[in-house]
Amino acid sequence: MNTLYDKHHALLDRARQACRERHCWSPYPEMPAKYPGAEQAQAAGRQAFEAHLGRPGARRRFELDQPGTVGWLGEEVSPYTQQPLAIDYPRADVDTLFDAASRAMSGWAQAPIEQRLGVLMEVLDVIYREHLFEVAHAVMHTAGQSYNMAYAGSGVNALDRGIEALVYAEQAMRAVTPSARWERRFGPTEVRLDKTYRIVPRGVAVCFTCASFPTWNAWPSMMASLATGNPVIVKPHPATVLPMAITVRVFRQVLSAAGFDPNLVTMAVDSVAEPLGKVLVKHPMTAIVDFTGGVPFGQWVEQNAWPAIAYTETAGCNTVVIESADDLDAALRSLATTLCMFSAQMCTSPQNIYVPRQGVRTPQGVVPFDEVGRRLAAAVAQLTGDPKKAAMILATIQSPQTLALLEHLQQQGRARGQVLLAPAPYPHPDHPQARTCTPLMLQVTTAERDLYGGERFGPVSFVIACDSAEDALAQASCDVKAFGGLTAFLYSTDEAFIDRAERAYARAGAQLTTNLTGAMPLNFAAAYSDYHVTGLNPAGNASLTHLGFVTGRFAIAQSRRPTTANA
Amino acid sequence: MNTLYDKHHALLDRARQACRERHCWSPYPEMPAKYPGAEQAQAAGRQAFEAHLGRPGARRRFELDQPGTVGWLGEEVSPYTQQPLAIDYPRADVDTLFDAASRAMSGWAQAPIEQRLGVLMEVLDVIYREHLFEVAHAVMHTAGQSYNMAYAGSGVNALDRGIEALVYAEQAMRAVTPSARWERRFGPTEVRLDKTYRIVPRGVAVCFTCASFPTWNAWPSMMASLATGNPVIVKPHPATVLPMAITVRVFRQVLSAAGFDPNLVTMAVDSVAEPLGKVLVKHPMTAIVDFTGGVPFGQWVEQNAWPAIAYTETAGCNTVVIESADDLDAALRSLATTLCMFSAQMCTSPQNIYVPRQGVRTPQGVVPFDEVGRRLAAAVAQLTGDPKKAAMILATIQSPQTLALLEHLQQQGRARGQVLLAPAPYPHPDHPQARTCTPLMLQVTTAERDLYGGERFGPVSFVIACDSAEDALAQASCDVKAFGGLTAFLYSTDEAFIDRAERAYARAGAQLTTNLTGAMPLNFAAAYSDYHVTGLNPAGNASLTHLGFVTGRFAIAQSRRPTTANA
Repeated sequence: MNTLYDKHHALLDRARQACRERHCWSPYPEMPAKYPGAEQAQAAGRQAFEAHLGRPGARRRFELDQPGTVGWLGEEVSPYTQQPLAIDYPRADVDTLFDAASRAMSGWAQAPIEQRLGVLMEVLDVIYREHLFEVAHAVMHTAGQSYNMAYAGSGVNALDRGIEALVYAEQAMRAVTPSARWERRFGPTEVRLDKTYRIVPRGVAVCFTCASFPTWNAWPSMMASLATGNPVIVKPHPATVLPMAITVRVFRQVLSAAGFDPNLVTMAVDSVAEPLGKVLVKHPMTAIVDFTGGVPFGQWVEQNAWPAIAYTETAGCNTVVIESADDLDAALRSLATTLCMFSAQMCTSPQNIYVPRQGVRTPQGVVPFDEVGRRLAAAVAQLTGDPKKAAMILATIQSPQTLALLEHLQQQGRARGQVLLAPAPYPHPDHPQARTCTPLMLQVTTAERDLYGGERFGPVSFVIACDSAEDALAQASCDVKAFGGLTAFLYSTDEAFIDRAERAYARAGAQLTTNLTGAMPLNFAAAYSDYHVTGLNPAGNASLTHLGFVTGRFAIAQSRRPTTANA
Repeated sequence: MNTLYDKHHALLDRARQACRERHCWSPYPEMPAKYPGAEQAQAAGRQAFEAHLGRPGARRRFELDQPGTVGWLGEEVSPYTQQPLAIDYPRADVDTLFDAASRAMSGWAQAPIEQRLGVLMEVLDVIYREHLFEVAHAVMHTAGQSYNMAYAGSGVNALDRGIEALVYAEQAMRAVTPSARWERRFGPTEVRLDKTYRIVPRGVAVCFTCASFPTWNAWPSMMASLATGNPVIVKPHPATVLPMAITVRVFRQVLSAAGFDPNLVTMAVDSVAEPLGKVLVKHPMTAIVDFTGGVPFGQWVEQNAWPAIAYTETAGCNTVVIESADDLDAALRSLATTLCMFSAQMCTSPQNIYVPRQGVRTPQGVVPFDEVGRRLAAAVAQLTGDPKKAAMILATIQSPQTLALLEHLQQQGRARGQVLLAPAPYPHPDHPQARTCTPLMLQVTTAERDLYGGERFGPVSFVIACDSAEDALAQASCDVKAFGGLTAFLYSTDEAFIDRAERAYARAGAQLTTNLTGAMPLNFAAAYSDYHVTGLNPAGNASLTHLGFVTGRFAIAQSRRPTTANA
């Protein structure tokens, strides 16, 4: 009965230790080349991806054996080819999905925790062994990520965050003893009760996934809901369906093979013209909402999900404070790399760079404010000047709207500040039709807060002149609290300043990285080690992963009765 | 520095074990007579209570050295004497309380977890050693409880639930390692980071306490918020301020003595005419709301607290299903006792009794439906016929509105069903002016669901004729899901029926007690063992106590930087 748990429990044990100690660990190779049988696996993954594609005039259906299919739709366009994928997905009758999910729940909820964990570890294992490169290509041609990022960030790192969610779900459930014998004297009578404590799933979960990074939040959310007994209806962003369709199919196959109702995981696809989001959030059977996406709808979800509970990961303006540096060039190179990474379409990408007007202290003397901006822009230009390097780091622009935003911000920046770096398409060496754009960098003062206050999604950053280092820190942490922020970056050689910054950012709720230079991307978030989202500012409340991410997904129902045996 | 933790850590260890194993344990004597130096302590407690009282024309101020006092108010009336207590409490400027709370937070949040736990255990210990009987008298003369219940339910059991909340707060915080060394190779470079994980309090908590049972929910809520670093503003029901005023004063004294800002705990008193509730919930600095009280405002809080998080414990219609019984008389005696206990003004009191129309199977044959109702009513009448016994079990009616509700329901019952037992005042032997009333019992069919669907606060119960035992269970669990319910009670000798009932009530989210008769009150909820509230129905979401009650009260903020030492 627990064979899948037996198969995977050693790995789960190791993951439990990593979560406890938060050191570096992953069961997966970090680079595609290190994957077992890499060459063959990569070719097979590519073929599997291509087999999903339709052609103009010959659209192809992605069959999912889920109930309630009332039509077919799909509107994905590859950012690499700017051609439609021509894949149609089932359009589902929403009530049918909820009914099916609800019926599927009871058998799943009654299964022992080990059995659920075993099945869910098997899902991750099947994705890893049989679908990882297929998912990577699907992510490339929907989200627009580079191949390496699609493998690492949307592949193995997302699998790691899935395992991590299972560890915490198990920990929260194991904190509840399944039964107890309770004995107490009431007056002259000894009362003996046998008590049973059941883990009861909260109900149907709706998991919204985003256009630019679908799996990284979806897999842990789905794992957290399913481990605690809840079915999941996945609502992918209409621009990025395929990675989730592959995911949903794997879940359904593994669940079925393990003897469970596959309708524990289904998919509700919609279109930009006819969005389903509010219908799903307000559906009377919705008990849990996981949302990844933009701030406005994320805030609507948080405010309107009740009586469902909502876990959100939106975004904000991630901030950088440059006070002083031992090696300013190294700091600017690291910053430049992170500003370019996937064209800053990551929820962890920095956007606002707060620099004292007096300049930045270095061992070689104070580097004036203007020069800091110029040198940072030069570092970015250097990274993006060579199309081959640019392709690896910038990849593509997921949405055409981002190009329009850049155009608008460039105009604003020209009028109200200074354009440090103007954006331009770069020719992608492998995909000549790719939607690409080098970063826009603007220099402004704090008078232009309306321009940089809030997330401007895409490759745009602001170098902001502040009155002093203290002002830079105050502005940055205040903007995080007001507009949201997930990550923060600091360069300072002053331990007292670092201490103040750590406190300020802890209060504001952004995860701070200090004085990091070199090979590691500044915004790299390690599963089992780096917490993601605090819940202390408008950038969301879904912290990957601590107990708060799982405890609301189940309830404890108790039954007690007098002990009958004299045991 | 950790001397208070040292003083109390053995007790906390023992409480941790009890929470893990959920057996019976309490460090406190369960009856007033067993309290150390009982006679003297009880007399001193009574004197301390009486010293708070004013007289007509000579109101007395309850001084609290908290900031922002802009006036004085108080409108408590003793249900035992129906005379005003004539105590005035500070009317606080709300913004001043929030500012003071916010300023107090930082030093408290930075204290080590052990230190906070030590101080909070000391608070509970000081209440127990120095104020328990004073609180008991205060509860009697505001909530209207009997002396024994005020001691046990509002005294030691509430202290136990406070310790329990500390155990879970500690467990959730200890699940976060304070620091980690993280090492990984990126290409040719070995990256070493030192990571620090801080527990960051969510912010100012507002704790609403109810008129009939103030301390039982307030103490664990306050402990959960404070242990995780948050300040608390207590908003007592205007009818029942004194128990919370004594509580707040103890918190402030112990916090001060331990070197912390006493404004971590303050009180915002309002009046029925000018309620502060919505102002406090919607205050921009409110981060956490704990609410105990009626369903309508509780639901408003859940819907409107955002961006604050809300923990609620409201109420509902607690249900009884009588399918069959080995000893029906014993079952009915136990039910009668529980229907009478504190005049059914407990959130765990049963209200709706679902009985098959065909009667109840017993070893002596089927007892007809009508006879079940009559015998239950007779058992209630017997308990309440003797004023001395009635005083001990029924105590008083907290609010005059309850008497009006009983009058209305009696009229309705007469017109639409049958009055099994009519309510009447009984003469309280010690307090001739006490507001008292024996229970109202009505017999109805499921056609009168609008009459019994939802909580009818006070000593009223409905014996409801159902089509069958299965129908009784279906009606009962469905009503719980629709209207809320915390407890449920079942009598059945059929193991298959019991199994179905356990599953149905687990789904509906009520804590089930099966076939209990004898000395233990059916609705007794043991700290460290019985979970209270599931979150699966409208009776609230604040489960005492599991990890979900504490995890939302704090966030985890991380900072990381390259390792500098070669350690």
